[in-house]
Amino acid sequence: MTLDVVAVLFPNVTQLDLTGPVQVFSRLPGARVHLAWRDDAPVLTDVGFSIVPTVSFEDAPQADVLLVPGGQGAFDLLEDESALDFVRRQARGAQCVTSVCTGAFVLGAAGLLTGRRATTHWASHAMLELLGAIPERARVVRDGPVITGGGVTAGIDMALSVAAELYDPETARSAQLALEYDPQPPFDAGRPDRPEADPAQVRETISATHSRREQAVRRAAERLVG
Amino acid sequence: MTLDVVAVLFPNVTQLDLTGPVQVFSRLPGARVHLAWRDDAPVLTDVGFSIVPTVSFEDAPQADVLLVPGGQGAFDLLEDESALDFVRRQARGAQCVTSVCTGAFVLGAAGLLTGRRATTHWASHAMLELLGAIPERARVVRDGPVITGGGVTAGIDMALSVAAELYDPETARSAQLALEYDPQPPFDAGRPDRPEADPAQVRETISATHSRREQAVRRAAERLVG
Repeated sequence: MTLDVVAVLFPNVTQLDLTGPVQVFSRLPGARVHLAWRDDAPVLTDVGFSIVPTVSFEDAPQADVLLVPGGQGAFDLLEDESALDFVRRQARGAQCVTSVCTGAFVLGAAGLLTGRRATTHWASHAMLELLGAIPERARVVRDGPVITGGGVTAGIDMALSVAAELYDPETARSAQLALEYDPQPPFDAGRPDRPEADPAQVRETISATHSRREQAVRRAAERLVG
Repeated sequence: MTLDVVAVLFPNVTQLDLTGPVQVFSRLPGARVHLAWRDDAPVLTDVGFSIVPTVSFEDAPQADVLLVPGGQGAFDLLEDESALDFVRRQARGAQCVTSVCTGAFVLGAAGLLTGRRATTHWASHAMLELLGAIPERARVVRDGPVITGGGVTAGIDMALSVAAELYDPETARSAQLALEYDPQPPFDAGRPDRPEADPAQVRETISATHSRREQAVRRAAERLVG
């Protein structure tokens, strides 16, 4: 078995949205990971370092698994027709169409979430409805071939679920063990409803960008119905 | 407060060892992440894509947090004097000297684990003793300024612990919430002693490289005492 994983790499991606799941996929027998962008220049991530695309939109193979990560840059893709076309075209032939975090909005802008249950980062969750999706509060949501993950680190859990389904549970468990994924977060603060979480503080840091994000999502929604 | 995080980026690094913790550190107020290698050419990771260094060994600022990730390429560093010199030099001025996965062997080869408790990937754990360390089975081990994490994904937990200590628990919790780090692995297979784990299968895939790794560690141990 071979597995072509094609991830969209774009400027200002939250890099762990991408690098978490591709690490899982890379440990599956026969897997090949491709990072696609419109050209081959290094792409600056949110952490201030660059990752080099491995294929262009034109040269990318048909994905078995399409992966769209999130981050501030994902909202720029909502108005990027060549990126949305690439996502639509790849999605047609993929077994699994996946997103992590706010990558879900790119799937939504491409028309792939209409009437589908989906999740995204907790702070942007309600906005999914604007694109015709049915927001569901869960770490990983599957609806047909579309699998969406919650914020950032949820991509690792998402990828393991996809691995179990495309291969078998034993293969997924081996990848999990090889990556020693036996998480022990030092705090119980990973979700707004957790006892040690202080969502107000996080909301404050993102509020500056939130209204700009919402405007981009609203414009994408208008184009979808237009 | 500013925080300079300097990570060593090297060929055939297990990229999530690096990209997990730097994502956490990047969310801390005043943090700057630097990826250091001997030159500025893109560095090929284990997943088949390249990451571009942001600084050379010569130009890197003094780290507040030094981070050494692991992977197959870490064992090549054991015989790379310029890399070991860089690690030693940075470690002298750093508040925290950290490793993820088999990055611990690089710290060990640099003489930084002698007599110290440390951890690494479960499959290589016993070998730490060869470099004078005291192997401890834990996801994150702190001994003085040296903090070592277990295999791959343990780097995320390690970075959150370091964040709590260098800043305060509230800041670490905010980073955890922003990254929605509320892990829900689909299986209980992340450690060899977990009920769904099958370590024999993982050991088989790594046995081809294991003896070569052990030889590299033994040579590094001889140089340490020599």
